[in-house]
Amino acid sequence: MYHAVVLCGGSGTRLWPLTRQAMPKQFLSLTTERPLLVETIARLKRLAPPERIWLVGGRAHERLMREMAAELPAENVIVEPTARDSTGAVGLAMARLLRRDPEAVFTAFHSDHIIANLAQFDAAVRLAGSLAEGGPIVNVGVAPRYPETGYGYVERGAVVASRDGVAAFKVVRFVEKPNAERAAEYVRAGNFLWNVGLFTWRAAGVRALLTEHLPGSVERFERSEALLESDPDGALEAFAGLPRISIDYAILEKATDRVVVEADLGWLDIGDWAAVYAASPKDADGNSLPDGSVAIDTRGTLASIGRPGKLVATIGLEDVVVVDTDDALLIARRDRSQDVKRVIDALRERGLERHL
Amino acid sequence: MYHAVVLCGGSGTRLWPLTRQAMPKQFLSLTTERPLLVETIARLKRLAPPERIWLVGGRAHERLMREMAAELPAENVIVEPTARDSTGAVGLAMARLLRRDPEAVFTAFHSDHIIANLAQFDAAVRLAGSLAEGGPIVNVGVAPRYPETGYGYVERGAVVASRDGVAAFKVVRFVEKPNAERAAEYVRAGNFLWNVGLFTWRAAGVRALLTEHLPGSVERFERSEALLESDPDGALEAFAGLPRISIDYAILEKATDRVVVEADLGWLDIGDWAAVYAASPKDADGNSLPDGSVAIDTRGTLASIGRPGKLVATIGLEDVVVVDTDDALLIARRDRSQDVKRVIDALRERGLERHL
Repeated sequence: MYHAVVLCGGSGTRLWPLTRQAMPKQFLSLTTERPLLVETIARLKRLAPPERIWLVGGRAHERLMREMAAELPAENVIVEPTARDSTGAVGLAMARLLRRDPEAVFTAFHSDHIIANLAQFDAAVRLAGSLAEGGPIVNVGVAPRYPETGYGYVERGAVVASRDGVAAFKVVRFVEKPNAERAAEYVRAGNFLWNVGLFTWRAAGVRALLTEHLPGSVERFERSEALLESDPDGALEAFAGLPRISIDYAILEKATDRVVVEADLGWLDIGDWAAVYAASPKDADGNSLPDGSVAIDTRGTLASIGRPGKLVATIGLEDVVVVDTDDALLIARRDRSQDVKRVIDALRERGLERHL
Repeated sequence: MYHAVVLCGGSGTRLWPLTRQAMPKQFLSLTTERPLLVETIARLKRLAPPERIWLVGGRAHERLMREMAAELPAENVIVEPTARDSTGAVGLAMARLLRRDPEAVFTAFHSDHIIANLAQFDAAVRLAGSLAEGGPIVNVGVAPRYPETGYGYVERGAVVASRDGVAAFKVVRFVEKPNAERAAEYVRAGNFLWNVGLFTWRAAGVRALLTEHLPGSVERFERSEALLESDPDGALEAFAGLPRISIDYAILEKATDRVVVEADLGWLDIGDWAAVYAASPKDADGNSLPDGSVAIDTRGTLASIGRPGKLVATIGLEDVVVVDTDDALLIARRDRSQDVKRVIDALRERGLERHL
């Protein structure tokens, strides 16, 4: 059977100060009125019944996950004993699914991505699910819109299937974040896609790859999973012995049978405030400001204000991002949004962890 | 006897959103840790004993005035029954002082100005006080530092006295806010001063001028003053019949015997956020930010943050003013600080008086 697994981890500092360690962006409403995780679950309910939609995330976010997954069975929220990168989350989900359904096929979904084109999304996930039953690991790619250096790319080969307006190709290779020159080449070449992830695979296939490439890990995953609710300490002990390693590095790079489904998802990974601005509705001056703001000679400016009813007034601003929360205020040139990480570093250095 | 009268009126929107109708700037700490009114009272206590220092202000600010004037006798806080421009405040003070001290000489001080050079201030006020005993109305002027068009100017004539490093001159004429060309002429001419105000006069002289130029007003001031504590309604009735008129227009322009004391006061009237910036301590990058702020590639920027402990982070800003309060946030180019009044106008138009 097909299952949808939503990975809810993520440190949540790229959209600081709105996102925090305790409140990563998947739990926030950024461009719609619903939190990204709630949007994600709503999207998946069209592809799988609630009992086959799973969330995996950390103890610190358990309450938020349960709130937002209120329509799912309680046992479908899997709380990791501790963080062990994406391999930890995928391995734990694998173990739980396999115990219920030896034939399980699942996609690992991001909890915090925006998908505008639902028809293509549905078609891509369905095609990936049916292809994965036959053995390959299937990911999803989108045509690159510009030479982004912050994403991974995937080179597609021969067509292996097509259905409902989406096509699947053999994967020639994955390329991690390229430099600008390479990225430009990939965009020109026409057979490179942005790697969106959304890996779909047989749970048993993941187990076999882990057995082969990460010896001892399967035992730990299965023991942790079995003890998760009944013996948290035992589960933690088993889990804590796992390495911190990304699933890409652990098994994906080593797999040989790989397929990519190309789809026009209207996909957006909101990685910084410039991306939030890009995805937000804007007025005639290109501003995205709270209702009732007073904007004088202001253009291209985004304001995210936590406190309801708080008034924003701007004078003479251009391309600025303003993010106001109760205990922190960020004002940045929009094209410097990536430098929020320098703010985070500075706060860590000064021991101001309470603001993270 | 010499008395110091502090005029505590003022609508308080030029430094919005920090200043409000309910909290004009004289009650706030802007460039030091003490509110401007507290600084003003401290300055005056060196020139007059507490029982001869008076505050005049509106009902809406009575509590604030009394808090900040805790060291003065309670009866020295004069609360106007309603607002009648500066003539209302000066006339009421005149009536109260005359009842106590027919020979009273007093200076009307601003409650919200900054004076850096106390020695010159003391000398100027003392010289003004002693000259005013002889009859003239004495104001204080400072040498113009640049052709400001937002101030009034005073043309000085022949020297009439000098003492303790300050000199007094006959006033040739007062000029209201000039245009840029005229202002430049005045600065070049060398015999024009910025009019700081600080008018010093005999209470009996003010009474005579009001009798002559604003018929009926003296009766209303004296009746209001007599009823102020015992019969607030009666005091209001008498006071409300007075015209709304500035003391400059009511009597100063019509007086003939006028003297100006020139002094190097280190004077600053904090009229907008650019002026607050100018008067605030700054770091090596010209920023005036709260302790603990993270400023990346930021220059010439001021942040005023109401909430203690709230963190400010800036990236790539130049010459920006940020003013954060619980219910409003202003971000403006520093050289557009004067346009705060456009924000105020917009809020009035929209009926958002709660933010004023």
